[in-house]
Amino acid sequence: MIRTHKAGELRKEHAGQQVTLAGWVARRRDHGGVVFIDLRDASGSAQVVFREEDDAHGLRGEYCVKVVGEVRIRPEGNANPELPTGEIEVVATTVEVLSEAAPLPFPIEGNTEVSEEARLRYRYLDIRRASVANAMRIRSKATYLANEVMNEHGFVYVETPTLTRSTPEGARDFLVPVRLQPGNWYALPQSPQLFKQLLQVAGLERYYQLAKCYRDEDLRADRQPEFTQIDVEMSFVDQEDVIAIGEALIGRIWKEILGYEIPTPLPRMTYADAMARYGSDKPDLRFGQELVDVTEFFKDTTFRVFQADYVGAVVMPGGASQTRKELDGWQDWAKSRGARGLAYVLVQQDGTLGGPVAKNLSAQESEGLAGFVEAKPGDAIFFAAGARNASRDLLGAARLEIGRRCGLIDESQWSFLWVVDAPMFEEDGEGGWTAVHHPFTGPKPEWADNFQDHPGEALAYAYDMVCNGMEIGGGSIRIHRAEMQQRVFDVLGISKEEAESKFGFLLEAFKYGPPPHGGIAYGWDRICMLLAGGESIRDVIAFPKTASGFDPLTGAPTPITVDQRKEAGVDAKPKAEA
Amino acid sequence: MIRTHKAGELRKEHAGQQVTLAGWVARRRDHGGVVFIDLRDASGSAQVVFREEDDAHGLRGEYCVKVVGEVRIRPEGNANPELPTGEIEVVATTVEVLSEAAPLPFPIEGNTEVSEEARLRYRYLDIRRASVANAMRIRSKATYLANEVMNEHGFVYVETPTLTRSTPEGARDFLVPVRLQPGNWYALPQSPQLFKQLLQVAGLERYYQLAKCYRDEDLRADRQPEFTQIDVEMSFVDQEDVIAIGEALIGRIWKEILGYEIPTPLPRMTYADAMARYGSDKPDLRFGQELVDVTEFFKDTTFRVFQADYVGAVVMPGGASQTRKELDGWQDWAKSRGARGLAYVLVQQDGTLGGPVAKNLSAQESEGLAGFVEAKPGDAIFFAAGARNASRDLLGAARLEIGRRCGLIDESQWSFLWVVDAPMFEEDGEGGWTAVHHPFTGPKPEWADNFQDHPGEALAYAYDMVCNGMEIGGGSIRIHRAEMQQRVFDVLGISKEEAESKFGFLLEAFKYGPPPHGGIAYGWDRICMLLAGGESIRDVIAFPKTASGFDPLTGAPTPITVDQRKEAGVDAKPKAEA
Repeated sequence: MIRTHKAGELRKEHAGQQVTLAGWVARRRDHGGVVFIDLRDASGSAQVVFREEDDAHGLRGEYCVKVVGEVRIRPEGNANPELPTGEIEVVATTVEVLSEAAPLPFPIEGNTEVSEEARLRYRYLDIRRASVANAMRIRSKATYLANEVMNEHGFVYVETPTLTRSTPEGARDFLVPVRLQPGNWYALPQSPQLFKQLLQVAGLERYYQLAKCYRDEDLRADRQPEFTQIDVEMSFVDQEDVIAIGEALIGRIWKEILGYEIPTPLPRMTYADAMARYGSDKPDLRFGQELVDVTEFFKDTTFRVFQADYVGAVVMPGGASQTRKELDGWQDWAKSRGARGLAYVLVQQDGTLGGPVAKNLSAQESEGLAGFVEAKPGDAIFFAAGARNASRDLLGAARLEIGRRCGLIDESQWSFLWVVDAPMFEEDGEGGWTAVHHPFTGPKPEWADNFQDHPGEALAYAYDMVCNGMEIGGGSIRIHRAEMQQRVFDVLGISKEEAESKFGFLLEAFKYGPPPHGGIAYGWDRICMLLAGGESIRDVIAFPKTASGFDPLTGAPTPITVDQRKEAGVDAKPKAEA
Repeated sequence: MIRTHKAGELRKEHAGQQVTLAGWVARRRDHGGVVFIDLRDASGSAQVVFREEDDAHGLRGEYCVKVVGEVRIRPEGNANPELPTGEIEVVATTVEVLSEAAPLPFPIEGNTEVSEEARLRYRYLDIRRASVANAMRIRSKATYLANEVMNEHGFVYVETPTLTRSTPEGARDFLVPVRLQPGNWYALPQSPQLFKQLLQVAGLERYYQLAKCYRDEDLRADRQPEFTQIDVEMSFVDQEDVIAIGEALIGRIWKEILGYEIPTPLPRMTYADAMARYGSDKPDLRFGQELVDVTEFFKDTTFRVFQADYVGAVVMPGGASQTRKELDGWQDWAKSRGARGLAYVLVQQDGTLGGPVAKNLSAQESEGLAGFVEAKPGDAIFFAAGARNASRDLLGAARLEIGRRCGLIDESQWSFLWVVDAPMFEEDGEGGWTAVHHPFTGPKPEWADNFQDHPGEALAYAYDMVCNGMEIGGGSIRIHRAEMQQRVFDVLGISKEEAESKFGFLLEAFKYGPPPHGGIAYGWDRICMLLAGGESIRDVIAFPKTASGFDPLTGAPTPITVDQRKEAGVDAKPKAEA
């Protein structure tokens, strides 16, 4: 090492010692001949004193320097209790500029707001900022802890292929032309799902991996074309075993990194309950405002809008005092989500109801409504009526929006839970069924024999871990019996040919004594974001891409040359099969 | 868990206990009514006894079963001291078939030779075989240990992008079309080199990663299109620091997995020495047979072939007794390596020299040769004459071949060393120079100022870790000064435009106070292969591809459909830049 000490680790005990430091010029203050510099390295920073201005001449922000000097206790009254190194300073005897820095595109020190474009373009400077560097370190520590927990529980780390088979149905596969087999293409995996199940057939029993996954999809909100999963699969288990490992994993990480002891076992909520009470399969339990089912309440209503399969309500505390513009804003908000609008009633201070819907209600309805939905004078009540799922979905989103606007969410709180018993199938809108998870998800034991007779009711042996309204993990007990798998394919209308083309090699493997197995995958970027207190997974990815998949740092992706195209075999015709 | 115990962990102490096991039917023996089955799971196996043939009826090899029974001490004389569970057996009371197995393509138990094609096609069965499963577990354990060591040394685990920028010069990049930006392509990284250097500019100081790397090259011998590196980079270091971490890493892994204490510090050999003595930059020191430089010895020779810039020799013990066919075989061997042949002299038992070259030697040469090269009666001496590097290369390969054919290599031995001081540049055959490592490799400190004046002599600050004749790690101290980098580009004839196009974003980053830094990358597949005693890296890759990049299991790569092609934007023209 070209230094003897880390700047951030100097303390009173080092007083009198000759030290060599190396790092970056963080701040510079000139005080009549004497120059003070904060020297920053990965460990923190220390104040360096140059007694002559000349010595520090030309040291500018973010120069990389090596300083030799003597540690001394800061003069009386100059100590800085805010800083771990605040009691000492280093009196420089020599300084060497290791490399200079051009004027910076944005300041490294302080909390200046910087555009995301600039941050990503100069990510190597962005990461010098304390909060960003800290997020990288938190992710690293979490990764280490995950390895530790999985190792302690006897899991085998296996790297599965990332150049694998494209399936015609995998519409969001990234494709990769293969020079050695012109005309043939690999696909980057959307997850190691098939491989981790194969590893169970292979008898490894406990697999995990920090797995890179790829999805060439429209980058909504906070997605990246490549993302990371902690991928887990186990044999001879039931749901309880997978859940127990998940609680051990997440529990250890939260405890070691945040000092927060997650109360375990985590609460569980059925999918049906979550949808009914929160309008979401990933409810944020940090605040109330549960949905109220008012279908029954309005069963005799003359108001046409509420003569629906389902009518639900959610209360906005203090919402009656919203301006006309704010109330109109809710309509736009609802329309942007594909709804026709968001009916509302305002509970006036005197208990009477206002708003355009109120006049359509009967006296009895008007009188009982606030009490039924537990709205107080001054609150607003929002309604959705129509198809059950879509209405709940809208109310669930409204609930979250209410939580945000009214400051109901305690950001210091952690709300973990398992959402279990999701349906196996949902209607595909064309008279058929699709798998809610994937077609290898098993039914709950009590549905093992007859799920095919009640596809709309059958429950899957699936479980999602939810934290603060985000799904951070999801998995299931898989099907391992050919006969049961066939019944699922039948419900889904997947023909033998289609099954063969999509999953042929997995079905082939399942002919050879597959064990009962199940697993889970954790969204690692999201978990690290929660740990780091970030607002986006980009905060915990060293070199993220923008929403369009562009990397402002490297300029990727780029056009390719004619030669590259030819070399890679992009336009080659595959040889006919032998 | 659907079992109470692991089969391989049952011992005498469990006698009398009721246990539930789950696993695979490994072997079955029928003895007049009584059936013995070895039940295998990931922990090992245990003998299960069925007292009635009926109970075990229909249990065939590799069925996955659940057995309930009572553990008992095996009857006198029936214990098997070879097996950890050899003192007990489980008397089955009930058995449940969890899943059946079709007839197997090859046996799981025993050491049957199976074709690689079949092994890869049915990899999930191959991994059930003890030796293959063991290799997977060794790799997992090594990965965990690597994480542990790097964590102890304060390294930050950072995942770098795998969808990144293609450079027109990166002829072996895998390319990936981007649906959201039709006409633009990502490239899969050949290594995280640029990103790990950026992370040093970013001030993280100590980076590591288990990094997937990709190279679309002709798959010589033992290559895979995707492979794994333990990738390391450090700031404010010199060569000694990187070497120390490397020895800590490899030392811990060998000790914990093989119980072998690698003597550290590892020996070091200069590149020049390695080439002169072993004709290789990755010498296998497990045997002698060093090359002998006989240029001086033959300086007055009249034999035209030996009137060369360099004449070298290597001795084959007992090689004089080779048949004519064997000796001719060496000529073919040399030709297959691009040489014109391999001159040889046979030292007869009486000390006289035989073989076609002998008659061209002077009496003095004939008399002194055997002694000079330390050949004994009965040995053969092989020669290469001509250009120094090519000749040494040929002799180095001959030496390895001699080692193999003569059984000189002690396979139980470990030979680790560092090869240091490689040249910075080598002639490109067109009057210019290319970088031996990469253009960011720094010169040794003593060459810092004048490498450009003696490109053929300048030494790089580079180091390779070699084990048993294989390079298992390689790295260097990098250049961090723009001025020095420019001199390297000048030697390499890289124009400003070319540098900008190839490494623009790294050069830009280097304007902002880059720290001195260096690093190394370990070939993880190879290291795991050595640990597992494998013969190929395919032995330690869960789902490897064949030499042509084909995956017999999934059938990847495959042709893509017209729709996929369109969807992925393969044929789209990139939008003109704004």
